[in-house]
Amino acid sequence: MRMQIAHDSRTKLIDAALYVIRAKGFTAARVEDICEAAELTKGSFFHHFAGKEDLALAAAEHFSAYADQVFSTAPYQFLSDPLDRLLGYVEFRISILKGDLPEYTCLLGTMVQETYDTHPAIRKVCDRCIAAHAATLVRDIDAAIEKYGIAADWTAASLAYHTQAVIQGAFILAKAQQSSQVAAACLDHLRRYIQILFDPQPNSKRQEV
Amino acid sequence: MRMQIAHDSRTKLIDAALYVIRAKGFTAARVEDICEAAELTKGSFFHHFAGKEDLALAAAEHFSAYADQVFSTAPYQFLSDPLDRLLGYVEFRISILKGDLPEYTCLLGTMVQETYDTHPAIRKVCDRCIAAHAATLVRDIDAAIEKYGIAADWTAASLAYHTQAVIQGAFILAKAQQSSQVAAACLDHLRRYIQILFDPQPNSKRQEV
Repeated sequence: MRMQIAHDSRTKLIDAALYVIRAKGFTAARVEDICEAAELTKGSFFHHFAGKEDLALAAAEHFSAYADQVFSTAPYQFLSDPLDRLLGYVEFRISILKGDLPEYTCLLGTMVQETYDTHPAIRKVCDRCIAAHAATLVRDIDAAIEKYGIAADWTAASLAYHTQAVIQGAFILAKAQQSSQVAAACLDHLRRYIQILFDPQPNSKRQEV
Repeated sequence: MRMQIAHDSRTKLIDAALYVIRAKGFTAARVEDICEAAELTKGSFFHHFAGKEDLALAAAEHFSAYADQVFSTAPYQFLSDPLDRLLGYVEFRISILKGDLPEYTCLLGTMVQETYDTHPAIRKVCDRCIAAHAATLVRDIDAAIEKYGIAADWTAASLAYHTQAVIQGAFILAKAQQSSQVAAACLDHLRRYIQILFDPQPNSKRQEV
């Protein structure tokens, strides 16, 4: 029973951090703000975490594990064609641009933007988690290159990172404009780019090799 | 003479803010850090600015005016073809990914990432300056659409914002990886996308209409 309570309060603090940090950034998010959002005391906070950086590292891991679960079980993963899965990823990304900005923007991009020089441990976990997410796309990109016989002068890894750049930049524009519409439009350009890369004549029926 | 000194110290504070905010973010950048980087006193700071937000607004305007000057006089602007100018913009962006991260990353993207909800005045100036920069590309995109007779199912404005999303996201990846290489690779994908959009068969000689 006590373990259960301990587990719940740790999770509540991480969930609160996910929201508060995405709402106001890592530095501006005070331990007090996170405790208030979690409806827990500072005593509880310091029982679970050595400090705000410690919580940020746990939040990054939690955010990534949650994203892994969401993307690995999303409907598009069950498509048989690797290009369909890749386009499905982008379309799924568009479909989840819902709710308030702190709900759909990225904890990792938000944190690394301001802490890359001052908090090396946070930068490292953000880098590792973004790279791991990009790597899940590399498999499908490589399979699509092979299936469609593409003579690419770019690597699968570079295209995977490009997708992440568009997504991260789209979030910044959404924050500036206070609207997810601009983000959706950017992701639609990304979808079109991927489609054209693998199928230079978009109106033709896709040719398998 | 006194005016000259006053002018210089204001400029020094703005230049220091450009570096310090891009190095550690808006919230973490203390007035003390900015004064230290400018080699000026807090007395001088508060002579020129009501506070850090006031300086941030001035820094955003200064950053944008400087960027305007750099891009409007860059060599690619003197190319006669609008598509060449658009591709020249992306290539120029790649060419200026030099030096330390605080030197080539974007003050506006860095600030709006963390302040969009807590500092509406900063969000607004970032939004306005990013929009104004994107608008300088809309002219060339529209001219290229007309010149090459493109039946686009996208707007010039959406492509202009997409270029900014790729650039902003590329900076985030560069911060995560501590290297401009990933940013250059993302911008190379953007260059390829624009090229293919206006010339569906990249190996053919571009056809003018």
